[in-house]
Amino acid sequence: MDTIKLTLEYDGTAYAGWQRQPDQPTVQSVLEKVLAQITQTSLSTMAAGRTDAGVHALGQVVSFRSEKAMTVSEWRRALNGLLPRDIAVQAIEVAPENFHPRYNAIGKIYEYQILNSPYRSALNHHRVWHIPKPLDVAAMDLASNFFLGKHDFSSFQCSPTDNENPLCLIERCAVTHKSPLLVITIQADRFLKQMVRTMVGTLVEVGQGHRMPSDIKGILQRADRRSAGKTAPPHGLYLVKVLF
Amino acid sequence: MDTIKLTLEYDGTAYAGWQRQPDQPTVQSVLEKVLAQITQTSLSTMAAGRTDAGVHALGQVVSFRSEKAMTVSEWRRALNGLLPRDIAVQAIEVAPENFHPRYNAIGKIYEYQILNSPYRSALNHHRVWHIPKPLDVAAMDLASNFFLGKHDFSSFQCSPTDNENPLCLIERCAVTHKSPLLVITIQADRFLKQMVRTMVGTLVEVGQGHRMPSDIKGILQRADRRSAGKTAPPHGLYLVKVLF
Repeated sequence: MDTIKLTLEYDGTAYAGWQRQPDQPTVQSVLEKVLAQITQTSLSTMAAGRTDAGVHALGQVVSFRSEKAMTVSEWRRALNGLLPRDIAVQAIEVAPENFHPRYNAIGKIYEYQILNSPYRSALNHHRVWHIPKPLDVAAMDLASNFFLGKHDFSSFQCSPTDNENPLCLIERCAVTHKSPLLVITIQADRFLKQMVRTMVGTLVEVGQGHRMPSDIKGILQRADRRSAGKTAPPHGLYLVKVLF
Repeated sequence: MDTIKLTLEYDGTAYAGWQRQPDQPTVQSVLEKVLAQITQTSLSTMAAGRTDAGVHALGQVVSFRSEKAMTVSEWRRALNGLLPRDIAVQAIEVAPENFHPRYNAIGKIYEYQILNSPYRSALNHHRVWHIPKPLDVAAMDLASNFFLGKHDFSSFQCSPTDNENPLCLIERCAVTHKSPLLVITIQADRFLKQMVRTMVGTLVEVGQGHRMPSDIKGILQRADRRSAGKTAPPHGLYLVKVLF
């Protein structure tokens, strides 16, 4: 019995997110269907992060256990041969028996891409959030610093909450500007539901002049979803890397 | 009567190329339909290059003449509001009355993207040519130099030929390697039909060791399509810039 660890890239446009759902195309259900085809058994997979509908991944990490005697390159050929074109395995390895992509992860890196230009993009229409009016990037950069450290992120959690531990340690929150593209990179030990998208939506409101950079401090303290900004759309978001 | 010059970005995946065709979705027919909607008259457009089915553009240049009294930003809003998501205007200006995007162009820049990795890409599946086995990039780079200068490109022209002047001046032909991505940039005063894709297909055969870099010289001299390599697929090709 091998525990296989996959690094997965996917274009989330066509999927109702990672997690298996009845009557909806999800990345997990497509992957499990292909694994059943390869192994002729029913397998269940675990992922490091449950990405929402429309969210992309460059480095989602998934694991499963199989009795099939296959080498890593046989797995690669079989999976990338059978998976649809918008899902692709980027790395495969045999992991220790008890490897769990979520419990063993010590952090994750997400990136959010904003196209800040009066002109929208044709080639990246489902991959960036297009904001036509100029954003104050310096203010957003300043605001992003207030997220650093360990805070209660209840204000940035989608309601209804999962009622779990709201404390997250933000190790990196940076705004990179390569005009007309603006990339917000966030690294944390853990993320709550829709947390990155709510952080981005709030940072954008700072960039639009509707909030001050230092407002982030008070929003965190209030621990109330209503105090933060709107949730940014899913199609600008990428799960970039899972850290172990 | 204004002559309007548009710079157009498009994802060619869904289109049978630039040029208007009966019963086929093309970029030109979609654009002309939208222009008819805006101006309430029938307009015809001209483009700098007729891109093939599946070929993308970052900087296609298109012109048309209109009596509609509209400012440049009104045109932008109207066009980008009505065009489908995979076609977007990137710049608009009023051009001199006799401006013609093809006759006035002094050159064009094309880029061809190859993903040289055992792993295919999910997010870029319709945007790069995926070649799993390692290519000899140094050999391809050497070979690309033999294209520089003015040559008869009959060997790199799709048959049946248009029977026009086969002489093209290649001002730049460079292979850039940022593993796993390989970008071939070609700038010329003019291009024959499927010329870039045949040049790329031939360079790839050099990278696979099936041809020597110096073979390019003889292929050009033979002026016979059968002496060159296979035509590379369209979805890795981008019309990047038109030079005036």
